[in-house]
Amino acid sequence: MLEEIKNDVLEANLKLVSCGLVLFTWGNVSVFDEETGLVIIKPSGVPYESMCADDMVVVDLDGKKVEGRYKQSSDTPTHIELYKAFRGIRSVVHTHSKWASAWAQACRSIPALGTTHADNFFGDIPCTRKMTEEEIKNDYEKNTGLVIAETFAEKGIDPLDVSAVIVAGHGPFSWGVSSDKAVENAAVMEYSAEMAFISTRINPEAELQDALLKKHFLRKHGKDAYYGQRN
Amino acid sequence: MLEEIKNDVLEANLKLVSCGLVLFTWGNVSVFDEETGLVIIKPSGVPYESMCADDMVVVDLDGKKVEGRYKQSSDTPTHIELYKAFRGIRSVVHTHSKWASAWAQACRSIPALGTTHADNFFGDIPCTRKMTEEEIKNDYEKNTGLVIAETFAEKGIDPLDVSAVIVAGHGPFSWGVSSDKAVENAAVMEYSAEMAFISTRINPEAELQDALLKKHFLRKHGKDAYYGQRN
Amino acid sequence: MLEEIKNDVLEANLKLVSCGLVLFTWGNVSVFDEETGLVIIKPSGVPYESMCADDMVVVDLDGKKVEGRYKQSSDTPTHIELYKAFRGIRSVVHTHSKWASAWAQACRSIPALGTTHADNFFGDIPCTRKMTEEEIKNDYEKNTGLVIAETFAEKGIDPLDVSAVIVAGHGPFSWGVSSDKAVENAAVMEYSAEMAFISTRINPEAELQDALLKKHFLRKHGKDAYYGQRN
Amino acid sequence: MLEEIKNDVLEANLKLVSCGLVLFTWGNVSVFDEETGLVIIKPSGVPYESMCADDMVVVDLDGKKVEGRYKQSSDTPTHIELYKAFRGIRSVVHTHSKWASAWAQACRSIPALGTTHADNFFGDIPCTRKMTEEEIKNDYEKNTGLVIAETFAEKGIDPLDVSAVIVAGHGPFSWGVSSDKAVENAAVMEYSAEMAFISTRINPEAELQDALLKKHFLRKHGKDAYYGQRN
Repeated sequence: MLEEIKNDVLEANLKLVSCGLVLFTWGNVSVFDEETGLVIIKPSGVPYESMCADDMVVVDLDGKKVEGRYKQSSDTPTHIELYKAFRGIRSVVHTHSKWASAWAQACRSIPALGTTHADNFFGDIPCTRKMTEEEIKNDYEKNTGLVIAETFAEKGIDPLDVSAVIVAGHGPFSWGVSSDKAVENAAVMEYSAEMAFISTRINPEAELQDALLKKHFLRKHGKDAYYGQRN
Repeated sequence: MLEEIKNDVLEANLKLVSCGLVLFTWGNVSVFDEETGLVIIKPSGVPYESMCADDMVVVDLDGKKVEGRYKQSSDTPTHIELYKAFRGIRSVVHTHSKWASAWAQACRSIPALGTTHADNFFGDIPCTRKMTEEEIKNDYEKNTGLVIAETFAEKGIDPLDVSAVIVAGHGPFSWGVSSDKAVENAAVMEYSAEMAFISTRINPEAELQDALLKKHFLRKHGKDAYYGQRN
Repeated sequence: MLEEIKNDVLEANLKLVSCGLVLFTWGNVSVFDEETGLVIIKPSGVPYESMCADDMVVVDLDGKKVEGRYKQSSDTPTHIELYKAFRGIRSVVHTHSKWASAWAQACRSIPALGTTHADNFFGDIPCTRKMTEEEIKNDYEKNTGLVIAETFAEKGIDPLDVSAVIVAGHGPFSWGVSSDKAVENAAVMEYSAEMAFISTRINPEAELQDALLKKHFLRKHGKDAYYGQRN
Repeated sequence: MLEEIKNDVLEANLKLVSCGLVLFTWGNVSVFDEETGLVIIKPSGVPYESMCADDMVVVDLDGKKVEGRYKQSSDTPTHIELYKAFRGIRSVVHTHSKWASAWAQACRSIPALGTTHADNFFGDIPCTRKMTEEEIKNDYEKNTGLVIAETFAEKGIDPLDVSAVIVAGHGPFSWGVSSDKAVENAAVMEYSAEMAFISTRINPEAELQDALLKKHFLRKHGKDAYYGQRN
């Protein structure tokens, strides 16, 4: 069942590879199917080269496997918490991409410093707080999702305005209304993370004008968007 | 009409991809046809892989679409202002290439530090001032072109001596007497931007002797040029 | 003899190339065959493109060549010392990969700063002390192995917990229970070395919580591992 | 005439491209033919993709063209001075490779910090002094060669011990007993230049022990060399 979505999930996972965001078997993409309430996700630790659509695993929102010959990605509980917390998202991506993970390791949000960032993200990409020892020891992956949700709630950020996060000491997650959009967010976050590093080396005081942030985000998103071919 | 130029514009846009200057649908090249007074430019937000010459859009110097099934690049008004301000240029390129954009985000001109830079640009590649809130809110893309023209006028730089600029908080534009030259300027700017970053990390006092800047620029440009095979 | 292992050693050496870890003829992989007590290793200074399985050299644990038309890698004595010192390892890899070697040149251990590192290495990747003039002048390659073993003994690190090292002023070695694992460790060390560089530029105080180090290493290693498809 | 050498020069120039050392038409390799006393060199500003062996230009040691449909590289006089000053070298390479050029722009020698560097270069790769305005204005390319020769003479460096240099504000030259060796030196210089940058960021006090420098250079060079397959 859900053959079309499995194919979509496979394609999105392979796109992580072609975008240079993953090494070996790292990284995973899932899609949430609103109709059935099920999550379709990459299997754990299977090489990308030999993966086929049928290897994708179907789980319910309690994390119970519904279909699939393989074990689901060990990060599945994080994906599930994000689907629960962020209404309207249909796909989640996790990678250990180099520049975004390096910011995560530094426990610093990725600052919005230019229009490249602003075209996709309506503000800084936040870094979560460090998780407690308790949160790490038990239900670690589920708690990872909860600390992401907490970050957006506490900072009052709309997850559709900034559809990406970095988890302190770990790495990036991103999401979107489709797997294409979620993967694009992962790639633009990585690109922006590298540029933010360079810019802050050149000028530690660098910052983006609020008017420019708004202009660029809103020319691509929302009802007054005029970028691209949608009319 | 203008089939040959449309093909030229397509090829130049694809060269941005092969030079590693763009991600996804970012970046755009236009050519100005002196005979008809029209601008041929890439459509907005269309993927490079599926783009053909016929997808290029023809607009007049008021920005009105004259031909094309797609909407023109949203940066078209910036291109038009550059054609109006800089006599003699025939092509304009815009990218969000990593190193040049990072300097733009830092609001710092790219300093001329060596002969690689000097072979193409007769001095620093200037960074514009930040645009005002008013300039950003209304006619943003047109004002981007105007602030570029202002930068060259105020600093007294000949746009054929330094055929590139970075817009504060945004990214690079370049131009030339042909699309080949405009794309080459985009690529050399990116290369020079990276090297300038590295050099200033090693030696914050690094600077290029004026004699060397002159020697290298003038061995490739102007009436006494002796590089290459032209005579 | 040992045709299968020769093939394994060839494949592993070629994987160093495809992982971007070597330039020219640099780098070498060996495998230790427990049954015969012999080491199969890449020949010295032979180009990767023309290398075949039969070019691999067989030596005994005294470093004496047992089979092969070529001279063994000049680093063979280092490999041998590692097989002698670290019980249970079956393969050793040596490269001059850029980021790990740069940390080695800086004489600084590669700090464990995130889960990418922790997924493979249970702590910092140690840098050896500088070798003495005496150790360098005589039996240099053998002494390189001894100083690695000394590093793990003195710091009390289990070589199966942290299966990699950087030798001061030189570069990285890694190992594992198979050539696949040893090459993977070389690649992840390189990736982690780059990220550690970036993170410490952003935040010189960056460090990984002990609980997170433990969680990630142990979800992939040891009896309670739950990553991947092993059950 | 000299067909074989022309082919060698072409291949060496193409290798600059495959090693990632050049952009567009930048860079050039020449070979000196001892028998005829002639220099065979790449033409000026011709694209690599369409270049064939017959496009190589033959000049004598006065810089006069002896054969070839194209104009020789504008850097020919620098190559010639190096053949005159450095006895025993048979090939010269010039590029604007990124990391070596960045050190040149910073007017800083590339420090020998590890065995990767020491395997090819017996000490720091020196940076020349800045050229005088007079040297730049007249016979610039010839004077570039003279200032390189002066650097080695004044510092007492044997050009076969350190077969590379960076010219202040400009970029790298390298040489060798064959075009293969000269290109290899260009590639290793670039690799070492990048690593030296990283290492000095991590530890500004980084330096290589003299014993290690000697050990590694001499295990690959001179009568006691034992690396590789020569016996």
